[in-house]
Amino acid sequence: MGLPDEQIHPIATGRAAQTVEQHQESQDLVFYSGWFCPYVQRVWITLEERGIPYQYKEVNPYKKEPHFLAINPKGLVPAIEYTGRALYESLIICEFLEDAFPDHEPHILPSDPFDRALVRLWTDHVSKQIVPGFMRLVQAQDSQKQREYLEEFNKALRTISAQVKGPYFLGEQFTLVDVALAPWVVRDYIVAEHRGYSREAVGNGWKEYAVQLETRESVLRTQSDRVYYTEIYGRYLRDEAQSEAAKAIRAGRSF
Amino acid sequence: MGLPDEQIHPIATGRAAQTVEQHQESQDLVFYSGWFCPYVQRVWITLEERGIPYQYKEVNPYKKEPHFLAINPKGLVPAIEYTGRALYESLIICEFLEDAFPDHEPHILPSDPFDRALVRLWTDHVSKQIVPGFMRLVQAQDSQKQREYLEEFNKALRTISAQVKGPYFLGEQFTLVDVALAPWVVRDYIVAEHRGYSREAVGNGWKEYAVQLETRESVLRTQSDRVYYTEIYGRYLRDEAQSEAAKAIRAGRSF
Repeated sequence: MGLPDEQIHPIATGRAAQTVEQHQESQDLVFYSGWFCPYVQRVWITLEERGIPYQYKEVNPYKKEPHFLAINPKGLVPAIEYTGRALYESLIICEFLEDAFPDHEPHILPSDPFDRALVRLWTDHVSKQIVPGFMRLVQAQDSQKQREYLEEFNKALRTISAQVKGPYFLGEQFTLVDVALAPWVVRDYIVAEHRGYSREAVGNGWKEYAVQLETRESVLRTQSDRVYYTEIYGRYLRDEAQSEAAKAIRAGRSF
Repeated sequence: MGLPDEQIHPIATGRAAQTVEQHQESQDLVFYSGWFCPYVQRVWITLEERGIPYQYKEVNPYKKEPHFLAINPKGLVPAIEYTGRALYESLIICEFLEDAFPDHEPHILPSDPFDRALVRLWTDHVSKQIVPGFMRLVQAQDSQKQREYLEEFNKALRTISAQVKGPYFLGEQFTLVDVALAPWVVRDYIVAEHRGYSREAVGNGWKEYAVQLETRESVLRTQSDRVYYTEIYGRYLRDEAQSEAAKAIRAGRSF
């Protein structure tokens, strides 16, 4: 999501605030976060899942520290700093956390090469179909467009649902597909309240899978109170958002 | 690229035809190809680079074998079949070929976790900026749009050029970034002949890097004669192409 557009609540709340509190100490790995951002939540879930020691730093998008800008010139969150090097892009950071911490359990990528490929294939579906579908639906102002995009969004969810082995995408193991998708599942009340979406209407077991994702401990631990997300999504719902993702959706571009 | 739209030359020519000839024998890994497709060429380059034994099978997009459709219902190339399982999507297959053949040298992913992340980050730039930029430029009919898209395309090339350590992206090692990009470099004469593009005009060392990529042995070995690509690109240049990628570009969607 990159940067929101106006003054927002500055810090995490609810369960996420407790998690932030537990990760204030200096660590080799620094996690630059924005509590509201679904891309950030992917990295956060991965850190929590894998028990990797990290120091949480909230980045105020309106007052970025010079050090943060020096290591990450685009200024985007999520970002991490580790052994003097910085990295951004949520899914690439998640794969990095697998590569750089091979001895930490559990893994979010399966060991079988075909299963890894399957996980990457459906993570790609989340990135290319589900997330842009959600954004298009949220940003659509015209009621006919909203209906059209809702059907597209439901179709993208139905497609992945048909592949879910249960309880998680690949079965018992919670993998990168689940990590990539969960932040949008916990935000789907936005389209339920404003765009006529319902989990039941998707079908194909989507509702059951969504409940598994939103009740996963790492997802709960990285979740703030709903009211503060709602405040942020107001600008998206009015198509006034100026984040990188919002602008890309408007221009019909990849992001 | 998926499927082109009309009768095309049915088989590889030039250097690629020799390579096809050398990979007719039955092998555990079957590579389903379309000689003309840049996404296919990524997988083909990876197979050649890493010396993985494979059997080449040309898929005729107008007469798909039932077995191919059974393992790969979407019918897209590139696809591979290995130990009874099938896989599609070029970059995911390339990563699979690393995971499933860890003992084959050389590797197209570096061993250092940060370098791997860097390679994935810039491969992502190729996927999200360079390839769609190329497609938009090719498909644009309006001359003002063509100028605008040419500048965007040049900018995307300039951005990656500035990161190239030389001779290849990461230095001496030929990696996934180079693999992902090379098929569009060898096709850039299309935009040079029809859209005013020139390697020199990009700047930032792009021309030198492009020459390194197009003269890499694995790239040469997977290259057909130019005249047959030109025939295919005619439909893209007239914006009449009906491949998945062409339709996505027209609709402003990710692909």
